[in-house]
Amino acid sequence: MAGNLFGKIFRITTYGESHGKGIGVVIDGCPAGLTIDKSLIEMDLQRRKPGQSHITTPRKEDESFIIQSGVFEGKTTGAPINIFIPNKNQRSKDYDKLKEVFRPSHADFTYLSKYGHRDFKGGGRSSARETAARVAAGAVAKMFISAHGVKIKAYVQRIGKIAIPDEANLNLQIEENIVRCPHSATAEKMIRRIEEVKVSGDSLGGIIHCEIKDCPIGLGEPVFDRLNANLAHAMFSINAVKGFDLGSGFKGTRLLGSEHNDEFYLDQDIVKTKSNNSGGIQGGISNGMPIYFNVAFKPTSTIFKKQQTLNKEKEAIELEVKGRHDPCVVPRAVPIVEAMAALVIADHLLRNRSSKLDH
Amino acid sequence: MAGNLFGKIFRITTYGESHGKGIGVVIDGCPAGLTIDKSLIEMDLQRRKPGQSHITTPRKEDESFIIQSGVFEGKTTGAPINIFIPNKNQRSKDYDKLKEVFRPSHADFTYLSKYGHRDFKGGGRSSARETAARVAAGAVAKMFISAHGVKIKAYVQRIGKIAIPDEANLNLQIEENIVRCPHSATAEKMIRRIEEVKVSGDSLGGIIHCEIKDCPIGLGEPVFDRLNANLAHAMFSINAVKGFDLGSGFKGTRLLGSEHNDEFYLDQDIVKTKSNNSGGIQGGISNGMPIYFNVAFKPTSTIFKKQQTLNKEKEAIELEVKGRHDPCVVPRAVPIVEAMAALVIADHLLRNRSSKLDH
Amino acid sequence: MAGNLFGKIFRITTYGESHGKGIGVVIDGCPAGLTIDKSLIEMDLQRRKPGQSHITTPRKEDESFIIQSGVFEGKTTGAPINIFIPNKNQRSKDYDKLKEVFRPSHADFTYLSKYGHRDFKGGGRSSARETAARVAAGAVAKMFISAHGVKIKAYVQRIGKIAIPDEANLNLQIEENIVRCPHSATAEKMIRRIEEVKVSGDSLGGIIHCEIKDCPIGLGEPVFDRLNANLAHAMFSINAVKGFDLGSGFKGTRLLGSEHNDEFYLDQDIVKTKSNNSGGIQGGISNGMPIYFNVAFKPTSTIFKKQQTLNKEKEAIELEVKGRHDPCVVPRAVPIVEAMAALVIADHLLRNRSSKLDH
Amino acid sequence: MAGNLFGKIFRITTYGESHGKGIGVVIDGCPAGLTIDKSLIEMDLQRRKPGQSHITTPRKEDESFIIQSGVFEGKTTGAPINIFIPNKNQRSKDYDKLKEVFRPSHADFTYLSKYGHRDFKGGGRSSARETAARVAAGAVAKMFISAHGVKIKAYVQRIGKIAIPDEANLNLQIEENIVRCPHSATAEKMIRRIEEVKVSGDSLGGIIHCEIKDCPIGLGEPVFDRLNANLAHAMFSINAVKGFDLGSGFKGTRLLGSEHNDEFYLDQDIVKTKSNNSGGIQGGISNGMPIYFNVAFKPTSTIFKKQQTLNKEKEAIELEVKGRHDPCVVPRAVPIVEAMAALVIADHLLRNRSSKLDH
Repeated sequence: MAGNLFGKIFRITTYGESHGKGIGVVIDGCPAGLTIDKSLIEMDLQRRKPGQSHITTPRKEDESFIIQSGVFEGKTTGAPINIFIPNKNQRSKDYDKLKEVFRPSHADFTYLSKYGHRDFKGGGRSSARETAARVAAGAVAKMFISAHGVKIKAYVQRIGKIAIPDEANLNLQIEENIVRCPHSATAEKMIRRIEEVKVSGDSLGGIIHCEIKDCPIGLGEPVFDRLNANLAHAMFSINAVKGFDLGSGFKGTRLLGSEHNDEFYLDQDIVKTKSNNSGGIQGGISNGMPIYFNVAFKPTSTIFKKQQTLNKEKEAIELEVKGRHDPCVVPRAVPIVEAMAALVIADHLLRNRSSKLDH
Repeated sequence: MAGNLFGKIFRITTYGESHGKGIGVVIDGCPAGLTIDKSLIEMDLQRRKPGQSHITTPRKEDESFIIQSGVFEGKTTGAPINIFIPNKNQRSKDYDKLKEVFRPSHADFTYLSKYGHRDFKGGGRSSARETAARVAAGAVAKMFISAHGVKIKAYVQRIGKIAIPDEANLNLQIEENIVRCPHSATAEKMIRRIEEVKVSGDSLGGIIHCEIKDCPIGLGEPVFDRLNANLAHAMFSINAVKGFDLGSGFKGTRLLGSEHNDEFYLDQDIVKTKSNNSGGIQGGISNGMPIYFNVAFKPTSTIFKKQQTLNKEKEAIELEVKGRHDPCVVPRAVPIVEAMAALVIADHLLRNRSSKLDH
Repeated sequence: MAGNLFGKIFRITTYGESHGKGIGVVIDGCPAGLTIDKSLIEMDLQRRKPGQSHITTPRKEDESFIIQSGVFEGKTTGAPINIFIPNKNQRSKDYDKLKEVFRPSHADFTYLSKYGHRDFKGGGRSSARETAARVAAGAVAKMFISAHGVKIKAYVQRIGKIAIPDEANLNLQIEENIVRCPHSATAEKMIRRIEEVKVSGDSLGGIIHCEIKDCPIGLGEPVFDRLNANLAHAMFSINAVKGFDLGSGFKGTRLLGSEHNDEFYLDQDIVKTKSNNSGGIQGGISNGMPIYFNVAFKPTSTIFKKQQTLNKEKEAIELEVKGRHDPCVVPRAVPIVEAMAALVIADHLLRNRSSKLDH
Repeated sequence: MAGNLFGKIFRITTYGESHGKGIGVVIDGCPAGLTIDKSLIEMDLQRRKPGQSHITTPRKEDESFIIQSGVFEGKTTGAPINIFIPNKNQRSKDYDKLKEVFRPSHADFTYLSKYGHRDFKGGGRSSARETAARVAAGAVAKMFISAHGVKIKAYVQRIGKIAIPDEANLNLQIEENIVRCPHSATAEKMIRRIEEVKVSGDSLGGIIHCEIKDCPIGLGEPVFDRLNANLAHAMFSINAVKGFDLGSGFKGTRLLGSEHNDEFYLDQDIVKTKSNNSGGIQGGISNGMPIYFNVAFKPTSTIFKKQQTLNKEKEAIELEVKGRHDPCVVPRAVPIVEAMAALVIADHLLRNRSSKLDH
């Protein structure tokens, strides 16, 4: 049973391969009457796009997209929305040499084992290109949740061993630098580190921090579809993700209950908590406080160093990849994290419409 | 849209509250022909049970269970399996005082906000008692995956600030100590620490490590239902979980690609990787290597210290809880982590039956 | 992938066998705040119950039921509702002889072929006893839709060759006679016919007509989950159903478009149609007019005449069943049809909460 | 919660409107390794296409289609398959006059009521053009089930009052005549009747009969997803369908059990039934005998006669539609019925892979 569907009510199905005709998404479940601003879709696609700065891959993707259904006179109709992004830059010759090889830490071996037949061009379906479809759908989800007052903002917190210092003052205008880090001194270090690693043909991972503000109280569906559980699912569905923690996260395991508990108080008739170790979610349901979490990305698997591996005939070979290379995808993953978060919130806003007898 | 259903083919629905008639689960999708060994269900329920040692709550749960359907002459029939665990020890008077109070970091406030009407006895549906139903279902899932050769083993890696040292030799007979820690020197420290904190009326969190061995190659459904994404979802659906990482996890973000990549080699005609930073999953699909991950639990919210909070009328009050208390649930969460992992693997074993034309 | 789940938001899972511990249902998705009147559940269970009159089977089922979760202080909490109906009258010795036999037009052969292992007692899961769980869940659904003003009423329109004449005046107090036929002269004929057939050890089928009134405009989800499509699914999931038609149905195929089209007009500011060949549903969506449909039931498979058949070893045998017998289940299926209709409407009332940006 | 998704494992999502960029479908769940023959997709699209003969609408649809993903080197890869059919003939000016009108028995009123905003061009999403996407997906499903030996064949049994006589000899080469009726004398009468009605600006309905042969024993998932229930759902999801019956159907309600029961016998070691009133399905599960059913279509709503109706302002108006007209869609619905049947069987072939411990 394939897994290209995400969400229960605001649900998306993505399709398309790296080097096929294009990639696309069908959003089935966006309510009617939402005004669609195409420039917001375009903006997020630009933020995800390869080749956007000198520190990413020089491979250029032309991210023109077509809304093929579901929008009429600028508004959603309740019908499924299809967004299609044609592939344009398909130098598939580059990839022919990789046809027979199991690249270390790539999906070549597992896809071939699972399906018995594999589109090897550019990684086919396992390519990160697939995430463009999510970003397009996420932009629609952002418009929907924005109509309900919810705001999502992610940024790069760590690249390799370089992280924003604790207690640093942050400037959330993250588009001002090419690593999308809200602390300019750290951003500069990160950029230099990526430049270094790029030269050496190696790659870097990192951590993205995300915050969801002004989320209504009550989102999340116990016991299995807690809001945090669906966020974890969403983030772990992104390529290269190896960790997720929310609120106090892994660090919180070191605290005592008396240090960790979030006491309630009243602030201008709104129930708030003094601390927010819960990360805005209690019992799996949003409590109105900011939701925040971290997503860990491993270093990109594609590197330009010699590696030992096997080919399809299970013969040991030495592999040296050439071509275009992205030494650190983390800055480009910021809009993907936001998109997946927006899709989760959109879905739960709709799911929550059934919680009470009178909605 | 409520969320008490987990899984797609091997799927479970749990029901029941802490202080109602009992809790139960319906497993819809367990294939016919599986031999059910009731003692394995009982064993896991005993491992999860409160009151099993002096470091947990003295509240005793009698975990007798009844298989009410789906099993005939000792084998599953393909019909839905219902397991019901009656509640017996329901001192609901204890809870009446809490009726009007929003306990810090509990689900009282969010449940009341979401549903408008709340079963306040013992936390109702938000009680960890619900996880007994998962453990029962997980025991069935374990029998199913065991028939396919898969083994799951979890243990306590950290309690508060006390963790197993790196490179320590582990003894995986974890039932030999009451904290389920595979390193006896660390186990002793953990027990002493829990005893201390119990006396002070405070609570502790911790980390559970889990390993899945001999998982067939090919489990996981890209792009959204990657095996890691479904494991993340499963773990984050457990009460008090705040973090999940798999393979190299958060630490892996500090490595270079050349350090992190797992090179393939052939071992007696089996494709293996030299390192296993991928944690047994590549491109969202199991590669045959061990799958391993960590789950972070916050300290229990119930403490016996004075806390400031609000009541239902949003009035500030001082709260001092009395009664039975479990200062650290992490050792009892070990079978819950195993159960949720088993449910994910069982589901994916069945989902993978549709990956190829000829199965 | 098993199929014991029905519905998308207001969804039920049934479980249990004819001769096991009992049968039950979990309703996951009933909104919080609904007042539960147990007598309404009991009333519908009584209407479905075997042995309720001299024309049905003398097998008595004690339909006492227990609401085990999801209701607190008389109201739903948003948690899953479990209703359990213990089995009491289990003369399983009666069935041992049938263990090895494939009864004609029963599910013995297909269940054994599909699952390889079969609970042969009383038909196990294929027994119509399973429908008691649906009736209990349907009674809850009726309370929910009744809170939205919707009314459902079914009755027996035909038994064998005896049908209500066209244009007959109907008395919808159908509980006044034991065949639940709203035309007393026809009811009498039906009863006599059933008595005759009972004596001869044979059985009868029939047609149930159902009407849903005051359904809000807008229910139904094109293109696949049209309201009519989900009603068809629901009705065809009932044992022994062989036909379903809605509105003009099969007869409508003989009309011209100019005869069949339902012209709109305004009646006290409400949009209505002059005729109602559409059966209250246009383009898969309710239009506010009464929804009506017919459900065809084949004659019961259990008869007391000699039949040729095979046993498990595929040997030809002669079968003569003895014991308790229900010559015509159609009158008892009336509450089942109503229950399934109520479940569909309840689900669509909730699904429709996501149709527009502002609900 | 929108309803553009059909199926559980072999599942499709359709999108697109009559007068937008085009219509499409994503098949998520077709197993890897299936050889795709594009000419079979094209052939079925041609059979559904308007303008294929003088008795249908002169509106020509150019049914060129593009497989945009999921197929590599002629075979499916396990990735989602997208098939897109661009719209070419979009005389949307024709439709502007209908913008303000609720056409009798069309979906104008219900769509506007449900969504508040409506794509009025050519019926938008409610247009039968959407079914082209189903036919394309159905052609893929046919290839899949054909690889498992299953055959599906539908034909026109009735147009208006003209039906194939009982006991007539049938010639199943139905493409030999333009009404797809397997009885040439009846076919001629049907054609003449359609010609007559076309001249008068009126329309006709009819009945399609469908047979599924060589279906493996064991398909169908009790209790709700019986094979017959999913077929009923599938057929009732097609525009204009008002009735469905299977096996003995509505007529079977007149028989006695002793007449209706299908006795088992052994034919060359295969279990068969002497009669087949069950229509190949017992207890919701296929028994290996031919599955057959009827689908009733109402006369097309678009007619060229004057009709009384309302406009959006709820004012009474007289409507006289002009333009292109299809007096009887039934012959063109034959491939749609086949497609939906193939999708159900494909899904159940995969669902059944989980019925036993060892598949």
